[in-house]
Amino acid sequence: MLPIYPFCTMTGKLITFEGPEGGGKSTQARLLTEYLRSKGIRVLTTREPGGTPTGEIIRDLLQNDLSKEPLCDATEALLFCASRAQLCSHVLAPALERGDWIVLDRFTDSTLAYQGYGRGFDVERLRVLNAFATGPVTPVLTFLLDIPVQKGLERAIARSGNKDRIESAPVDFHQRLRDGYLEMARKEPGRFAIVNATQPIECVSAEIRRILHTRLDIPGVVASV
Amino acid sequence: MLPIYPFCTMTGKLITFEGPEGGGKSTQARLLTEYLRSKGIRVLTTREPGGTPTGEIIRDLLQNDLSKEPLCDATEALLFCASRAQLCSHVLAPALERGDWIVLDRFTDSTLAYQGYGRGFDVERLRVLNAFATGPVTPVLTFLLDIPVQKGLERAIARSGNKDRIESAPVDFHQRLRDGYLEMARKEPGRFAIVNATQPIECVSAEIRRILHTRLDIPGVVASV
Repeated sequence: MLPIYPFCTMTGKLITFEGPEGGGKSTQARLLTEYLRSKGIRVLTTREPGGTPTGEIIRDLLQNDLSKEPLCDATEALLFCASRAQLCSHVLAPALERGDWIVLDRFTDSTLAYQGYGRGFDVERLRVLNAFATGPVTPVLTFLLDIPVQKGLERAIARSGNKDRIESAPVDFHQRLRDGYLEMARKEPGRFAIVNATQPIECVSAEIRRILHTRLDIPGVVASV
Repeated sequence: MLPIYPFCTMTGKLITFEGPEGGGKSTQARLLTEYLRSKGIRVLTTREPGGTPTGEIIRDLLQNDLSKEPLCDATEALLFCASRAQLCSHVLAPALERGDWIVLDRFTDSTLAYQGYGRGFDVERLRVLNAFATGPVTPVLTFLLDIPVQKGLERAIARSGNKDRIESAPVDFHQRLRDGYLEMARKEPGRFAIVNATQPIECVSAEIRRILHTRLDIPGVVASV
């Protein structure tokens, strides 16, 4: 295969938040972004699917019924990856090459958890799709905000007020998804950090900062929080 | 992996036309469709990318600059496959289950030839993408309309009048693509039939019909042309 990025010099860092519904990923991603910025680090945040003109149209297909027809599961997975490919090549890779940091609420592991462990697609095939989409863009650190299914669903429903969307998948779907996340984290302990997301928000964010300093060098910061 | 089509009873047949530029695929696909219909066979034709509401939006992204930004090669390949997945699940699989025949001008092999042999993506990875998109929808017969690169390009330019689009890729791209097609055909002789597309249109279509009757049973037709 011809290399897509022949002179890969990515000095930035990509940090992702993953986990089942109701674990507080977007809150913690925001808090971590603010923390990193307070340390003088340039941090990019964006969204998936989306984040590019092409990705936003794909988002409308995936989430806003743009084509007015149901999408089959394979179309859905491929569209997520197409949006990701465009985001990686046009936004994430250039940012990492500039030395910026990136904090993402969900990335490749969500595809493995939702479409793979959740919907039953072969996880190894999905890894091929992910690798195809991301090229050399890889998270250095992934926070898995873990929470028992029932508790997470209650929180998510309370937050969004949209019971239908979240409960449309049966509880055992969410259980497979959580189990899948935990299995992935066990297999890649160097990248994943499992955080107990049932704790209060401040405790979770303090633990995230502790882990951050253990795992990564923060420029200009002594390694203590 | 959970099966997508648990009760797969596809009695129809999918025939595809493949090959480099200027081989006359669309003409021959049309002639074959007319021939099959004249024999009382129900034949579906459609187009890729496209053929579903979702696929048509993807077509606008791929070919009509809908998002007003260049697509990276990986996005392009994934979008082709997303359109294909939707077409397979919503149109092709139901048609094959009804017992209809389908004639397609380009299908999965085009992805392998253009994105793989042409652009340099790993062909085995692209096979995974294709399999993900198509599920059990597989051509029983693929006509490779083979033509030397220079001759094919001359014909394609004469036909379309759009020299820029076709010549935008260098000649060695088209050469790799042709070589790739021939290699795929050699590896799968049971599915592929290589046809010399430099012959006059009528000779090509007569050869296609001859091969058709050798390879497949045409309902209600004695096996001679």
